[in-house]
Amino acid sequence: MERFDVNILGCGSALPTTRHFLSSQVINLREKLYMIDCGEGAQLQFRAMKLNFNRINRIFISHLHGDHCLGLPGLISTLGLLGRTSDLHIHIQPDAEKIFQPLLQYFCKELFFTVFFHAFDPQKNELIFEDRSLRVYSIPLKHRVPTAGFLFEEKPKSAHIIREMIDFYQIPISQIQAIKNGADFISPEGEIIPHSLLTRPADPPKRYAYCSDTAYYEKIIPLIEGVDLLYHEATFIEKDLQRATETYHSSARQAALIAQAAHVKKLVLGHFSARYPDENILLEEAQAVFSHTILANERMTLQV
Amino acid sequence: MERFDVNILGCGSALPTTRHFLSSQVINLREKLYMIDCGEGAQLQFRAMKLNFNRINRIFISHLHGDHCLGLPGLISTLGLLGRTSDLHIHIQPDAEKIFQPLLQYFCKELFFTVFFHAFDPQKNELIFEDRSLRVYSIPLKHRVPTAGFLFEEKPKSAHIIREMIDFYQIPISQIQAIKNGADFISPEGEIIPHSLLTRPADPPKRYAYCSDTAYYEKIIPLIEGVDLLYHEATFIEKDLQRATETYHSSARQAALIAQAAHVKKLVLGHFSARYPDENILLEEAQAVFSHTILANERMTLQV
Repeated sequence: MERFDVNILGCGSALPTTRHFLSSQVINLREKLYMIDCGEGAQLQFRAMKLNFNRINRIFISHLHGDHCLGLPGLISTLGLLGRTSDLHIHIQPDAEKIFQPLLQYFCKELFFTVFFHAFDPQKNELIFEDRSLRVYSIPLKHRVPTAGFLFEEKPKSAHIIREMIDFYQIPISQIQAIKNGADFISPEGEIIPHSLLTRPADPPKRYAYCSDTAYYEKIIPLIEGVDLLYHEATFIEKDLQRATETYHSSARQAALIAQAAHVKKLVLGHFSARYPDENILLEEAQAVFSHTILANERMTLQV
Repeated sequence: MERFDVNILGCGSALPTTRHFLSSQVINLREKLYMIDCGEGAQLQFRAMKLNFNRINRIFISHLHGDHCLGLPGLISTLGLLGRTSDLHIHIQPDAEKIFQPLLQYFCKELFFTVFFHAFDPQKNELIFEDRSLRVYSIPLKHRVPTAGFLFEEKPKSAHIIREMIDFYQIPISQIQAIKNGADFISPEGEIIPHSLLTRPADPPKRYAYCSDTAYYEKIIPLIEGVDLLYHEATFIEKDLQRATETYHSSARQAALIAQAAHVKKLVLGHFSARYPDENILLEEAQAVFSHTILANERMTLQV
C-alpha cells in the first residue's frame, strides 16, 4: 500500500485556543508533501510532526481569511533559512500575490528559490493541478468570501508484481515495470505469460476531499461522491445553527448530512469553534446521522 | 508590591523547534500589558498563558526580522474578532508601516479600532514612550539590520501608608493620596504629623532591559547599568563564536560578561539556537562568569 496520509497541523477556527492551532493540513502522497491551508503556527506544527520541510511541494489555500493563510510568510522565511533551492508553488486566489508580496519582498529577500502564486477561480470546479501521481480539483464552497475546497485524487496505480511468478519464469528486471503497467511476458521460448497471472490488481486510486470553510451546501455532494475520506468543517452544533448560518459555517449535523448524501467512506470533523470545551458534543451529533465520523485533532495522521 | 512581570511567550531563534516558539514577551505592569516582539505564534502563546487580550496596550518591535514580528497580522486579526475598540499602538521602525499595511488592509478590514505605527530610530538611545507608571527607552544594539532593545523603567512610586497611623490620627480618606505622595498631615488642632511618621518608603522603581538580537556590544553597558532583570540573547555557545560573530549574535558567555559589567541583578538568557538539544550548556557557560543567570523558557513568568 503506497502512502496517502493526511496530517492535521491545526483544526481550530479563527480564534486561538489552548487546544487547537489554526487551519492547516499536510497531505503525504508517496513522500511528497502537499499543504492545504497555512494558518499562523503551521510551520511550528510542521516541525512538531517531524515532517520534512524539503518535501513541501505545493501549497493550496482555500480562502483569504487570516486563519487559513497568515502562516505563509513565516513558513516561506523558514524554508529560506533552511537553504531551499527548489521553487515553491502556491495555488491561491488572484488577490493573494499583491497582498503578500510586500511582506515577502521584505522578509524573504534572500531566498534561493522563487515563490510562484498560481491563481485559481474558487467559483469553478476544475482541475487546478496535476502531476505523475495526483490530480487536485477545486470545489466551490459557500462562505462569506470566495472559498474553494480541494479534491485530491490519486491517479490509477500500477499492478502489484507477484515475486514468485517473476522467479518462476525468470523474468528480467528490465521488463518488470512494463508488466506492472499491464504488459504480458513473452518467454525466450515464445510462450505468452499473461499479465493477470504475474500480478495482483492495483490498489484502487484513493480520493480525499477538504471542505472548509463552508455553510451547508448541497452542490458539493456530487463533487465528493464516494471519497475515501472527507474533512468537512463543523464549527458549530445544531443548537447554534443561527450563528452558523450568519457566519456561513456548518453544524456537525450538517457535515454528517453531506457525508451521508455523498456516500463517503469516512468523515473527519474540524474547524472547531472555541466555544465548546468538549468536542464530543460535535462528534455525537454527527454520528447520529453518519456513524463513520471522527474528530480531527492536532498532530493526528489519517490514512486516506 | 505592585506587579511588574515578564511573561516569556517565545525564546527560540529564527528556526522553529519542538521546544521553542519565536521571540515574544509580555510585560505585565500593574495589569497593563506591553508586548515586546511578536514572532509567529505569539497570539497562541498569549492565550496559552491566559493573558487577557483586552489588556494589550502597546507593542514594541526590536527589529524587522520575521521571527520577531510576523505574528503581528494574526494577533491584530484576533483582537478584531474579539471586538476590541481601543486603539493599538505599535512602536516599530519606519519601514514597517508600508510593509504591513497591505496585509492589514486585506485581513483586518473590519476592525473597530485603529492600528497606529509609531516609528522610532533604533540607532538612538531615547525615550520612545511614557505613561503614568512607565518610561520605555530604546537601546541601540549591534545586529545585521537596525535593531533596538528596550529599557522598561517604572516611574517612582508613592509611599506605603501605615494603616495604624491613619486610624490613630483619624486621618480622613480624602487626604490619604496626598500623604502617599509626600504631604504631611495637619490635625484639626493644628498639629503637624510628618509624612515620614505616617508612611513606609515607596518600593524602589524597577527596571527591565530586553536586548535581542545583538552581537556582543559594550556600548549597551551604561544604558542597562544596575537593572533588576536583563534578558540578553545567547544564541550560541563560545565554541560557536565564529558563527555568532558572522550572524551578529552573542554567545552565552558574552551575555554574562555584559550582565557582569553592567552590574545587573539577574540575567535571563534567550533566543536559543536550535542546534543545542540541552540548553544547560548555555546556562553553565554563562554562570561561570555571572552566577545570577537563568534560562528563559516558554510560559515562564519572571518578577522584575
